[in-house]
Amino acid sequence: MAEGNDENGKLAQVRTKGSYSVVSLPHQWFILAMSSELKREPIGRRLMGTPLALFRDNEGKVGALLDRCPHRNVPLSDGEVAKDGAIQCPYHGWRFDRGGTCVAIPSFTGALDNRARNCTAYPAMEQQGFVWVYSTPFDASGAMPDKRPHVFARADDPGYVTVRQAIDQNGTLFSALENALDVPHTAFLHRGLFRSESRGITLKVKISRAQDRCTAEYCGEPRPPGFMARVLSPSGGEVQHWDRFIVPSIAQVEYRIGDENHVLADTAMTPISDFETRLWGVVSLKTRLPGRVVEPFVKPIGLRVLKQDAVILQKQTDTVKHFGGEQFTWTEIDVLGKHIWRLLKAAERGEPIRDTEDTEISLVV
Amino acid sequence: MAEGNDENGKLAQVRTKGSYSVVSLPHQWFILAMSSELKREPIGRRLMGTPLALFRDNEGKVGALLDRCPHRNVPLSDGEVAKDGAIQCPYHGWRFDRGGTCVAIPSFTGALDNRARNCTAYPAMEQQGFVWVYSTPFDASGAMPDKRPHVFARADDPGYVTVRQAIDQNGTLFSALENALDVPHTAFLHRGLFRSESRGITLKVKISRAQDRCTAEYCGEPRPPGFMARVLSPSGGEVQHWDRFIVPSIAQVEYRIGDENHVLADTAMTPISDFETRLWGVVSLKTRLPGRVVEPFVKPIGLRVLKQDAVILQKQTDTVKHFGGEQFTWTEIDVLGKHIWRLLKAAERGEPIRDTEDTEISLVV
Amino acid sequence: MAEGNDENGKLAQVRTKGSYSVVSLPHQWFILAMSSELKREPIGRRLMGTPLALFRDNEGKVGALLDRCPHRNVPLSDGEVAKDGAIQCPYHGWRFDRGGTCVAIPSFTGALDNRARNCTAYPAMEQQGFVWVYSTPFDASGAMPDKRPHVFARADDPGYVTVRQAIDQNGTLFSALENALDVPHTAFLHRGLFRSESRGITLKVKISRAQDRCTAEYCGEPRPPGFMARVLSPSGGEVQHWDRFIVPSIAQVEYRIGDENHVLADTAMTPISDFETRLWGVVSLKTRLPGRVVEPFVKPIGLRVLKQDAVILQKQTDTVKHFGGEQFTWTEIDVLGKHIWRLLKAAERGEPIRDTEDTEISLVV
Repeated sequence: MAEGNDENGKLAQVRTKGSYSVVSLPHQWFILAMSSELKREPIGRRLMGTPLALFRDNEGKVGALLDRCPHRNVPLSDGEVAKDGAIQCPYHGWRFDRGGTCVAIPSFTGALDNRARNCTAYPAMEQQGFVWVYSTPFDASGAMPDKRPHVFARADDPGYVTVRQAIDQNGTLFSALENALDVPHTAFLHRGLFRSESRGITLKVKISRAQDRCTAEYCGEPRPPGFMARVLSPSGGEVQHWDRFIVPSIAQVEYRIGDENHVLADTAMTPISDFETRLWGVVSLKTRLPGRVVEPFVKPIGLRVLKQDAVILQKQTDTVKHFGGEQFTWTEIDVLGKHIWRLLKAAERGEPIRDTEDTEISLVV
Repeated sequence: MAEGNDENGKLAQVRTKGSYSVVSLPHQWFILAMSSELKREPIGRRLMGTPLALFRDNEGKVGALLDRCPHRNVPLSDGEVAKDGAIQCPYHGWRFDRGGTCVAIPSFTGALDNRARNCTAYPAMEQQGFVWVYSTPFDASGAMPDKRPHVFARADDPGYVTVRQAIDQNGTLFSALENALDVPHTAFLHRGLFRSESRGITLKVKISRAQDRCTAEYCGEPRPPGFMARVLSPSGGEVQHWDRFIVPSIAQVEYRIGDENHVLADTAMTPISDFETRLWGVVSLKTRLPGRVVEPFVKPIGLRVLKQDAVILQKQTDTVKHFGGEQFTWTEIDVLGKHIWRLLKAAERGEPIRDTEDTEISLVV
Repeated sequence: MAEGNDENGKLAQVRTKGSYSVVSLPHQWFILAMSSELKREPIGRRLMGTPLALFRDNEGKVGALLDRCPHRNVPLSDGEVAKDGAIQCPYHGWRFDRGGTCVAIPSFTGALDNRARNCTAYPAMEQQGFVWVYSTPFDASGAMPDKRPHVFARADDPGYVTVRQAIDQNGTLFSALENALDVPHTAFLHRGLFRSESRGITLKVKISRAQDRCTAEYCGEPRPPGFMARVLSPSGGEVQHWDRFIVPSIAQVEYRIGDENHVLADTAMTPISDFETRLWGVVSLKTRLPGRVVEPFVKPIGLRVLKQDAVILQKQTDTVKHFGGEQFTWTEIDVLGKHIWRLLKAAERGEPIRDTEDTEISLVV
């Protein structure tokens, strides 16, 4: 227009002066693949927005390199593993070992001792069938970090049935963690699936926080009336229930119903990018019923719950992006939310967290 | 590149130091739905980029809330209307009444009197089969605004046939308004449809402007030779023709041919976002022919004209966005364009407009 | 989040403090179409991000106008050529001649001598079956530039078979040029197609640079073992091989094998936008074999090579954009890369380049 228009005219819509619950977590282990996914061909994955090329060398050991050839910036994951076990760029054939050192430049007659030609490498290891990658590159020493990845405590116990399931959610790591450990939404979003409408029972919830975790313990909960509960405990009985967040990204839900039933449901979350989180669920169960009876029910119900959560988190993310930030309001029944956030921010900054006194709140189920 | 590159190198293309004909219009009524579209289920709509959830409470009254639950920012329009007539978020089941007050938080035992948990609410009302929403939220008093929505003058008159049609255009509100009230393009874009090539007749056009509208009156126009005109006035005769823009977004085209034929074509436009405009056309006709004869012709021809305009406005918008702004040049036969723009800018700023003297220009048809 | 999050939290990923090998090249000729593509209908093309409308007037001469009507910014290429040979906007029917002058405004009774109503026009000409457009608009004199487009030296020579092929690559002009003149990648990316794995022969490469070009001459190369080479020179013999970059955008590869075989492969590149380059390949061959025997092999092999390059450049571009810039490392066997870049930057700035001494490097094939 001849007369121009002001900034106000351009921004007709309601916008949030908000921020995003996005964190950057250095010096932490995350699952990037199942061991079975990583064969001889390299695969490309992302961790907090950074593309990584995963491959196995001739010893079967996993390498994790920044997925960008230092020469002309083509992704190494589009190449192949050469006879010497090095990953080879598909453009000019440059090769790199697991430590990121450039070990060959075809056609070149000069020396290879130029550090600018090396590729950034990340510590990687396998444990319990998963490929874990460390979120900070190797330092000059090339030593593996002292810290170890999370152990799924019952996954190797023959007394338990263990079911694994991966799913992607389009939400921040924080939103996915809070969702996984949130009780009130289950009566609405998952209505009839594992919780039904409120029975009006007021529970006490004890909340405690340590350096690397926070825990909510639910006391006095009777067996819920939903289908999943009936499968677990046909005879009824009191429920013991703990929800835990373990730094950097484990959501752990534990149920005991009587002496015979025990569920330990760990979800190890990987921040793919700011608004993409991959959930690696490892659910171990011990019940009155034999494992082969229980197992066929666990996976489809668990998957349905996860998909309902994925739909809601996608809508939350779309809305938050549309408004240009989050604008959340809080109540005390957002039981672990603020504790998860403080632990994530402390992990981001590498600072210790001040322990809090245990608190107790009420919640109606 | 090792040597870097300057800003000039990044911006190789021709760009316009232009602005956009985008306005933000507070304190105005816009149509967001037909009454028949809004049943028991909530629906999501946008107004100037802001998502709104529309729903009916138990009295059948329309609520219009900001489409974002204040708790975890999930869209309320994805929820449902609960038994108490409140809209219920699909994530945790929080409920809100038509005024935006949070009336229930399931599982929560505390008090609900926290204003941070309320949702922004907009005045809404129904009139002549349309749901109108006010572009500024309720103030603290909660009172409906004094101003009323536009009335379609002949829509309820049994002596007229009234046809309604909605269509979306990917153009700014200004571009859509100017297009709807522009005469010269009809001979090109709509060639053969309701105007054909020029007959070389010079018309006088009187232009007047008031606080809330501008009008162009076309004098001395013979019956046009196109098909639509033959339907309207088989016997020929002089045409009386007025084009009006009424603040904030009504384009009104009125034709009289003799005493027997009268067309009042109102288009109420809704700025969905900066470059998306929804047109709600309400065309009332009284002709020599019975309504049932005329009606089958009006809608298909009108729709074809609207679709040709939609294609051109889409191309205009694509070009304007590509160049980073509009760069229009003007002639006096852009009859109402500059007046529409000045009225829109005055409405945006909430300032009165200085009345202008009537002017007269010439235009060849 | 209530506590907010810092900038670091939002940028979790590895990012490059890099720039892009993007240039803006004024006062240069580029191919925008084949002559056979431009019939009576206007066509829309882009040059360095700027949309252009190409059309033929009644004399058959090519016009190249900024593809935006000065009135309401609709693309002229969506219009048509009117009876008078002017291009006509589809919205209001404004018409423009090859020089960009507005020659008609339907319905308007005033004078047309308003320069704001003219359209920006670019010099255009046809040569050897291509439509060339100059990257800087006509100046006030309206004179054609003195500089002429590149001539494909053997394309009109009856002693040669000439094959033409266009292809699009999603890479910068620099990346496409470097790729077209790069030898080492051929053994990997095009393995088995026209070079196979290294035979361990060390070649000397002489590099020279002038004001408008740089040349690499490969000395002592035996006939390569690949298929293409066997077609060209069944009897073997020494290969003479030159790679040339000619400002602004010609990649020229020349081979002589004995006296009888000569290949001159020119690729004229058009920067469509920062990361889109169109390649117009013109390959002229003279071989021991008759043209009709050679021709059926040249096009499919050439096209396969071009498509493999297009896939790699797309991946390079995706990676570079993901990281927010290029971060290339260099070796001496990136033979012409840095010279091409310096010539492009000199052309961008309109500055002369200092001649360099000839250099010589080694390269193993």
